Amino acid sequence: MNDFVSDTIRPVRFADDRLWLLDQRRLPAQETFLPLDDAPAVADAIREMVVRGAPAIGITAAFGVVLACHQALQATDWRERVGADIATLRAARPTAVNLFWALDRMQAVVAAAGSARAALTATRETAMAMLEADIAGNRELGAHGAALIEPGRAVLTHCNTGSLATGGYGTALGVIRAAWDQGRITGVYADETRPWMQGSRLTAWELVHDGIPVTLLCEGAAARLLQSGEVGCVVVGADRIAANGDTANKIGTYGLALLARAHGVRFMVAAPVATIDYATPAGDAIPIEQRDAGEVLTLAGQPLAAAGAAAYNPAFDVTPAGLIDAIVTERGVIENPDAERLAAWRPHPGDTPEPRGVHEGT
Amino acid sequence: MNDFVSDTIRPVRFADDRLWLLDQRRLPAQETFLPLDDAPAVADAIREMVVRGAPAIGITAAFGVVLACHQALQATDWRERVGADIATLRAARPTAVNLFWALDRMQAVVAAAGSARAALTATRETAMAMLEADIAGNRELGAHGAALIEPGRAVLTHCNTGSLATGGYGTALGVIRAAWDQGRITGVYADETRPWMQGSRLTAWELVHDGIPVTLLCEGAAARLLQSGEVGCVVVGADRIAANGDTANKIGTYGLALLARAHGVRFMVAAPVATIDYATPAGDAIPIEQRDAGEVLTLAGQPLAAAGAAAYNPAFDVTPAGLIDAIVTERGVIENPDAERLAAWRPHPGDTPEPRGVHEGT
Repeated sequence: MNDFVSDTIRPVRFADDRLWLLDQRRLPAQETFLPLDDAPAVADAIREMVVRGAPAIGITAAFGVVLACHQALQATDWRERVGADIATLRAARPTAVNLFWALDRMQAVVAAAGSARAALTATRETAMAMLEADIAGNRELGAHGAALIEPGRAVLTHCNTGSLATGGYGTALGVIRAAWDQGRITGVYADETRPWMQGSRLTAWELVHDGIPVTLLCEGAAARLLQSGEVGCVVVGADRIAANGDTANKIGTYGLALLARAHGVRFMVAAPVATIDYATPAGDAIPIEQRDAGEVLTLAGQPLAAAGAAAYNPAFDVTPAGLIDAIVTERGVIENPDAERLAAWRPHPGDTPEPRGVHEGT
Repeated sequence: MNDFVSDTIRPVRFADDRLWLLDQRRLPAQETFLPLDDAPAVADAIREMVVRGAPAIGITAAFGVVLACHQALQATDWRERVGADIATLRAARPTAVNLFWALDRMQAVVAAAGSARAALTATRETAMAMLEADIAGNRELGAHGAALIEPGRAVLTHCNTGSLATGGYGTALGVIRAAWDQGRITGVYADETRPWMQGSRLTAWELVHDGIPVTLLCEGAAARLLQSGEVGCVVVGADRIAANGDTANKIGTYGLALLARAHGVRFMVAAPVATIDYATPAGDAIPIEQRDAGEVLTLAGQPLAAAGAAAYNPAFDVTPAGLIDAIVTERGVIENPDAERLAAWRPHPGDTPEPRGVHEGT
């Protein structure tokens, strides 16, 4: 494992029976950790985007279950209380499948526990293992993805898929970290990613932190950049991958995939296997979260637009599998993904469960 | 001429030997007119985007020459002074051809004048005629464009091409005003248009002002919107149209044209004939202005991105003619534009000059 690139950012920390979340709404201006003590507060933090990024949301929700067990320790109806908290966490955001994957796993751990104390111990161990496995998996994913990048040009990415969006190291940004480390890329172009500015605020912050040259652009400039020939590869993350390879990711991804295809630039999706949702046959079945118009119409509380204007603000879009050249996971690469190729990756029901198992599709 | 839609916004006014420009940097929060007394101040205002939009820039520069004549009224070397001021105005922005078209016309008027006093009178009359002809031409353009829109769906536009970008009424927004007035469109979707937010700040302000429903979106959401089928037509303006139909316009236009084509949505360019530059054979010969990184990295003086990040910030891109279904001008429509079809529109050298003549390609 290559440790040359610094990777010290850890957005989700658990200590002294509290969950500490790096408040990503305040980056890059302030690095503040918010302490959380119960599951409803965790659900709020996910909804309000204190933490975002599909893998990080999953891990955060897992720790939310640990807090639920801690809160219910003295209660006789602890199972009901923890169950209600899991339902609250499940409703926090609708698109990222890692949330449901993590909560399914935690629910099974709670169900197997004979007491509240045992549930607390077991959920804490499972959540910590999930966090560690995510970071280790991302390093493997990064190595697989970097090997696909032909040396000598820049890479373009969208949103934030780095340490901040995961347990650490990142998915698409993990691929980029590994590719930079191997001298394969000349630098990183990053979409600023309106309306939430994850590119400007988070991706640029991470890459500057690690000494990797980063150039921001508005989404509208991506077509001209791709036309210039400077970019050899587009790498993005995923919030949910349907069984046929259709991929829900941050709004703007689908358009970027169309632009990459129009310019003959390779388009890569980097995501842990847990992001593949075998229960969802195709992209049109993925629920797309509509977020508040204020995210488009205001910035930092100041109005950007004339009063009276409405906004169209879907948080995600769906890129058809046909526009994706490769899905890169911690287990390897799926080239030209389709239902058949993804099915071959599905573990058999009898497989031994492991920390980073596949969503069971329930 | 249809006067049902209100069209009272006039961003460029000339009165009492002063040019008054609506300061578009302060919209929609404040409606402030800046008074300008000499040509260098006009060049600064164009460069700093107090006024923007290709036709409005041309008209503003024409009034800049009027101010130059006024300033030189008592000078024996008035021709040299006015000539130097025209050179200063010419250097203000490189992409919009209307600037050069307007200055060429004004230069000819100055050259034909026998005295400074005569030059002042003649340039003032020409500039006023240019302004009035622009508004009248835009109403004709709007009618031609609206006739191309199949009724029943919404229209999507980019940047601001309205009263604020012209003498009044607008080009692409003129088409939209006419189409709304005729009941052909259900409403308007407008790209917010990063980094300068012309969509949020200016287009939304104009449309709210005229009671036309407007929904803003981030550029990244355009692909999903086009996929939804809600939009029947994309209409944009132009800063320069090459002799083969390749069109330079606000950054983001080229990507939008690719997305429209991918979804089978018609893509229309609306611009006065003066925007066609027969001296530029194809789009790759159009100079593209690179603007300051701060436009991407900060907003209203506040940093958006981590210190140390760079920015890629071209102000325009070039849409190949092959992606354009129709160029709409005040004289009519050029369907499927190419060099041959545009050449057929070129006036013969012996044609009587008229207020809205074609750029002569010098």
